[in-house]
Amino acid sequence: EHKITENTEESGNVLSKFETAAVLSDSAREKTVFVHGKISGQDAVVILEKTPIQKEVLSQIFSESRLKLQMKNDIYSTYQLQAPAHLNEIKTTVVFPATQKHIQKYQRQESFLLEETAEDYFSITLPYIQEQHFSVQWVYNILEKKAESERILFEDTDPKTGFVLLPDFKWNQKQVDDLYLIAISHLRDIKSLRDLTSEHLPLLQNILLKGQDLILSTFGLPRSKLRVYLHYQPSYYHLHVHFTHLGFDALGSGVERAHLIQDVIQNIQINPRFYQTRTLYFPVRADDGLLRKYREAGKM
Amino acid sequence: EHKITENTEESGNVLSKFETAAVLSDSAREKTVFVHGKISGQDAVVILEKTPIQKEVLSQIFSESRLKLQMKNDIYSTYQLQAPAHLNEIKTTVVFPATQKHIQKYQRQESFLLEETAEDYFSITLPYIQEQHFSVQWVYNILEKKAESERILFEDTDPKTGFVLLPDFKWNQKQVDDLYLIAISHLRDIKSLRDLTSEHLPLLQNILLKGQDLILSTFGLPRSKLRVYLHYQPSYYHLHVHFTHLGFDALGSGVERAHLIQDVIQNIQINPRFYQTRTLYFPVRADDGLLRKYREAGKM
Repeated sequence: EHKITENTEESGNVLSKFETAAVLSDSAREKTVFVHGKISGQDAVVILEKTPIQKEVLSQIFSESRLKLQMKNDIYSTYQLQAPAHLNEIKTTVVFPATQKHIQKYQRQESFLLEETAEDYFSITLPYIQEQHFSVQWVYNILEKKAESERILFEDTDPKTGFVLLPDFKWNQKQVDDLYLIAISHLRDIKSLRDLTSEHLPLLQNILLKGQDLILSTFGLPRSKLRVYLHYQPSYYHLHVHFTHLGFDALGSGVERAHLIQDVIQNIQINPRFYQTRTLYFPVRADDGLLRKYREAGKM
Repeated sequence: EHKITENTEESGNVLSKFETAAVLSDSAREKTVFVHGKISGQDAVVILEKTPIQKEVLSQIFSESRLKLQMKNDIYSTYQLQAPAHLNEIKTTVVFPATQKHIQKYQRQESFLLEETAEDYFSITLPYIQEQHFSVQWVYNILEKKAESERILFEDTDPKTGFVLLPDFKWNQKQVDDLYLIAISHLRDIKSLRDLTSEHLPLLQNILLKGQDLILSTFGLPRSKLRVYLHYQPSYYHLHVHFTHLGFDALGSGVERAHLIQDVIQNIQINPRFYQTRTLYFPVRADDGLLRKYREAGKM
């Protein structure tokens, strides 16, 4: 039956009728492309991603491919290799019919670096956060065990220094190479880095130490293999801390957005009001309402 | 004549005789694999990298490929696409004969996060740097126009606050999407972040402002599109600053190694001896001599 489905689909190659409208985004590094187009007059999004090279078929690739020499210099030479199609597939995802929302979602968004002085925070950013009423109900559901309770790996129930630790949704938990955990504070009044003062040092130190201990005992990773950090701006305004494998280039671990928790602790130890006085830099996407606010204030 | 070379090489496919010994490293994200093996008894390294999807041939890929359905759920479906081989090439690099050094170079190296207190710097790191006698003669050659002078995009010749700005070797200069420039200070006595004091604020501010100006006028990129940072540890011990496109996930721009120059300036403004007193964190590869020193000192 499986074969029949395949054959039916092959004879009716849905993409042969696909008319490309625009490339929404692409990545030369990851070998992906996101394309918007139409199938029989209706919107569709097609995502192509070249597949990782399978080590199991390397010898077949070497023996069964055609090689075209491009360049030779001393001991170095480069070729274009044409492999048999079944050893070199392209993962294809079709969204059909697609809505305008799908098309927007896959559209590349430019980012801009904002410079936020302490004054900018209080006059632009904070009012914006408050007027948006971003809901963190889903975070409260986790803390109250109304949702995702089976995913919690560790909890410290102290209302001031406690937290829950659970895997981030981006991690499939199949290998530690790309380990990604999130610690969510039980304390509810800290929106971001900007609210942290010396009062919160015991909380930050507790999250760092107990998080490191749990990861060592559960996953066998010592603290020297971990990158532990906060985002600014965070993606939701309730204090949380990211734990990722040092060898894994996690999205959002770049210097423009991530703040090592060890640095945050040192900064507050030196100056309890460090994050209420400091100029902070962070990236915002072109469609972020906060960017519009900074533009309106003449700060861009 | 070009065709003859190609044909000759095709008939003598060098890889058909390649015997795989070990996969040195691979990346599922970037679709690359580095393989060690033998050709006629001699060591060789073969690097395979799937090529970026070319937008120019998308319609051909859509119309000339075979599709095998994998999964269908509501509006989402996924397929394995088998494209004509000439539309889906694999870039292949052969190093032959390869030395032990080549093989080591491509071997995946684990990284470890080191914690370096100010005391550790003076008792472990600094003596290590000094005893290694790392040469920066190639940097002096650039500053003295004995090498790479045609690559210099801008120079400020002031001996204290001046610098040269040139493209990093990783950037092919074909598109600004992955712009990567390096500013190298004319001052010769600053090994790294650890040597910076308030005396160097005019130098840092000059590099930041003139670098931003040059990039705006030459490449049309405003400062809101730039990530400007120093590495700690640097890869060579002569002060230099990295300028990369904010939208480009440059290697080494992670929070564990990069320090935004704007933060460095603020830190020194608050405390002139910030970098002589601070505990710093940085990654080291398993084969780095500095890691051995920290282990010997019982710091790991």
